[in-house]
Amino acid sequence: MISLWNDARLVTLAGEQPWGLIEQGALLTRGEQLLWVGPAAEVPAELLQLVQKRHELGGAVVTPGLIDCHTHLVYGGQRANEFEMRLHGASYEDISRAGGGIRSSVTATREASEHQLYAQAAHRAQALMSEGVTTLEVKSGYGLSHVAEAKMLRVARKLSALGLDVRTTYLGAHAVPAEFLGRQDEYIEQVCQWLPQLKRDGLVDAVDAFCEGIGFTTAQTRRVFEAACALGLPVKLHAEQLSDQGGTQLACEFQALSCDHLEYLSEAGIAAMKASGTVAVLLPGAFYFLRETKLPPVQQLREAGVPMAISTDHNPGTSPTLSLLLMLNMACTLFRLTPEEALRGVTQHAAAALGLKDRGQLIAGQRADFCVWNIAHPNELAYYFGRNPLRQVVRGGHVRG
Amino acid sequence: MISLWNDARLVTLAGEQPWGLIEQGALLTRGEQLLWVGPAAEVPAELLQLVQKRHELGGAVVTPGLIDCHTHLVYGGQRANEFEMRLHGASYEDISRAGGGIRSSVTATREASEHQLYAQAAHRAQALMSEGVTTLEVKSGYGLSHVAEAKMLRVARKLSALGLDVRTTYLGAHAVPAEFLGRQDEYIEQVCQWLPQLKRDGLVDAVDAFCEGIGFTTAQTRRVFEAACALGLPVKLHAEQLSDQGGTQLACEFQALSCDHLEYLSEAGIAAMKASGTVAVLLPGAFYFLRETKLPPVQQLREAGVPMAISTDHNPGTSPTLSLLLMLNMACTLFRLTPEEALRGVTQHAAAALGLKDRGQLIAGQRADFCVWNIAHPNELAYYFGRNPLRQVVRGGHVRG
Ligand SMILES: [Zn+2]
Ligand SMILES: [Zn+2]
Repeated sequence: MISLWNDARLVTLAGEQPWGLIEQGALLTRGEQLLWVGPAAEVPAELLQLVQKRHELGGAVVTPGLIDCHTHLVYGGQRANEFEMRLHGASYEDISRAGGGIRSSVTATREASEHQLYAQAAHRAQALMSEGVTTLEVKSGYGLSHVAEAKMLRVARKLSALGLDVRTTYLGAHAVPAEFLGRQDEYIEQVCQWLPQLKRDGLVDAVDAFCEGIGFTTAQTRRVFEAACALGLPVKLHAEQLSDQGGTQLACEFQALSCDHLEYLSEAGIAAMKASGTVAVLLPGAFYFLRETKLPPVQQLREAGVPMAISTDHNPGTSPTLSLLLMLNMACTLFRLTPEEALRGVTQHAAAALGLKDRGQLIAGQRADFCVWNIAHPNELAYYFGRNPLRQVVRGGHVRG
Repeated sequence: MISLWNDARLVTLAGEQPWGLIEQGALLTRGEQLLWVGPAAEVPAELLQLVQKRHELGGAVVTPGLIDCHTHLVYGGQRANEFEMRLHGASYEDISRAGGGIRSSVTATREASEHQLYAQAAHRAQALMSEGVTTLEVKSGYGLSHVAEAKMLRVARKLSALGLDVRTTYLGAHAVPAEFLGRQDEYIEQVCQWLPQLKRDGLVDAVDAFCEGIGFTTAQTRRVFEAACALGLPVKLHAEQLSDQGGTQLACEFQALSCDHLEYLSEAGIAAMKASGTVAVLLPGAFYFLRETKLPPVQQLREAGVPMAISTDHNPGTSPTLSLLLMLNMACTLFRLTPEEALRGVTQHAAAALGLKDRGQLIAGQRADFCVWNIAHPNELAYYFGRNPLRQVVRGGHVRG
C-alpha cells in the first residue's frame, strides 16, 4: 500500500541544507519503506495517483525515528539505594562491602526469571519508545555466565514485540564475575567459548567489551575481538572512559562499528577512527551522573570528520536515564554539540554505530521510521530538557499505537 | 464524603522516621482534606465505619503532591534559536544584537494575546502536572509594563482551571524594559506604582525582584520591598546567583519567604536566612543549563538548618525544563542533596517558600494533595533522570483525570 504523509517540515538529515530541511514537504511510503521524499508540490503525478491513504500533518516537524545505539536495558533490580548511600557519604568501598556495585546487578540478573527480566525491561523500553525511539540496541553483560548471558540476550530479542527494532550486543567482557576473580584470562576464554553457540542461537548482532583499567586489558579485548571476527561478527568497544588505554586503536584494527564514551581519547585514537570509519558514541548521561569533568574531544572529532552518535547508555549504575531527548540537551549543554549534530547523533550516526544502512535519514529506499513532533523547529528537541513533544511515531510505514 | 486510601507505603515527610515512612499505611480524606494518616491496621473504628469510598493502592509509594515554587511559566515564544546560535559560537553580544535575550521574550510576551499566552502556558503547566505537580508558582516579569504584567498575572491565575493551585508572584523588577534604559530608578518607581492596582485585582500573592549586577541594586530592591510591605504582601528574591550582592540580608530584613538561586550566598546571608526563617530555593536546572561551576553552599545551609526547596525555574532563557522530577536528580547529582532532602524540597519546603502551611506533608488537617507512584521506594524519584513513574494524582481529595 502506498501512503502519503503531507504538509510536514521534513528534517531529512540528507542533502546540503542545514538539517536537510524541506519546508512543506511530503513523504510517500510503500509498505515498510520510504518511496519518495521531497517538497509536497513536487510529488510525481504517477505516484500521487497510486496513493491509497493520505495523512495531513499540518506543518508539523518530522524527523527520522530515533535510535538509541548503546544501552544496558536488561537487568534485574535497580540501584537507587546505592545512589542514596553515596549521597549520605558512603564511599565506593562501603557500597562494595554492602554488596553493591555492578555485582549486585549481576546477582539480581542471575536470580531473575526470564519473565521478570522481560517485564522490567519492557517498561524501560516503553519509556524510550514514548519519546520516539524506533531502534534500540541492548547489551548483555550482567549475566557473566553462558546461561545468564543467553537469558539476557533472549529477553532483549523479545523486546521487539513491543514495536521497535532491537539489535543485540554480546558484552560478556563487561566485568569479571565473582567466581573468576583473579582469573581474568580464564574468564575471557570462557567469554570467547560461549560466543559461537550464542551466535548460532541468533542472539548476537555485535560484540562489545569494557577496555579499562578497572575492566579488561587491550590484550584480553583483542582475544574477544578475534573470537568475534572469526565468526564474522562486528565489534564495538567501551573505550577511554576513565583513562586512555589505547583500546580505540585496537578496536579500529578490527574495523569497529563504534567506540563509545571516549572522554580520554587521544589524537592517535581519533586518527584511527577516521581511518576505519568508526563512529564515536558519546554518552553524556554517564558523564553527568558520574560528575566527570574530562570532556570528550568533540572539536577534534568534528574536525577529523568522525561521525558522532549520542545514546542514553541506560544502566543502573552510571546512567539510570530513560530519556534520549534529555541526552540531546546534555550533548549540547555539556559536550557543546550543536542541536543538529545532536539529532544526527540519535538518527543517522546512531544507525551507523549499529551497522544499519537502511535507516537514520529520510531518503527514498530507507525504512519508513519517522517521528511527528509538536514543535516549530527541530532545534527545540535539544533546547528543552525534561519535555516530550512527541505527537506520533510511524514505524515501518505504520502508525505505532 | 470520607474516602479511604488503603495499603500504601506512605512518605509523609512528618515524624522522626527517615522520609516519615509509614509501611502499610492508610489515608482517610474528608472533602479536600486529610482526615487521618497512619498505619492501615490502626485506622480508628469510628472513622472506618464512616468510609464511603475505598481505594486499594496495592503497596504503592504515596508522597505529598509536588510543588514547583519558582517558575516563569507564562511568556510568549521560546528561545531555541538563541540556544542554537550559542552552540554555533555566537556570543551573548551577538545574540543581543540579533534581538535575542530576555528582550525577545518581553517583545513576544507583549505582542501575544492573553489567549495565546494561556495556550502556551497551559501546555507547559500540563507537562509539570503529568509528573505530579499540584501547586505551581508563576512569576510575571516579561511584561515590564502595567498592562503586560497584569496580562501575565491574569494568565497565571487562569491556569488553575487545569486542576492545580497557582500562586502568583509579581516580578516587575525582573529587567529594565527598552523604553526605560538608563533610567532604572524611574522604572522601579513605576514597578512600585503598578503594584497596588495589581493587588486590588487579586493578581499578586507575593513580590519578587532580580537583585544582581546585571539586574537591580539592593537600594532598588529595597524600594520594591517597601512597596510590597506597605500592602502587606510577602517578598521573595532572586539573590546571589552570579555574584554576592548581599541581597539575601536585605530580603531577610523583610522576612522574605524565600531567597532563590544562592550560588554566591555568604555566611552572613546564611545567618540572616536562619534568623528570619527564610527558605533557600535551589535551582539546579539553571545551574546546569548555564554550565555554572560555583555551587550553592548546601552543607552550610544544612548545618544552619535553613530549609532547602528545589524548583524548575522554568524560563525560556536559562532553564527551559518542564520536569520537576529531573530537578530532584540534578539537586542530588549536582548539588549533593540527599534524595530525601530533594523530595522535601519539592513538597514541604516548597510549600514554605510560598508561605503555604496547609500542604507539603501527609498530616491530618493538610490538603489531600498526593501522588501515587509506580516505584518501590521514594529514593527512586531522585535516582532516575528522564523517567516519569507517576501512577495517579489526588488533589483536594479527588483523583485528577
Ligand atoms: Zn555502556
Ligand atoms: Zn527565576
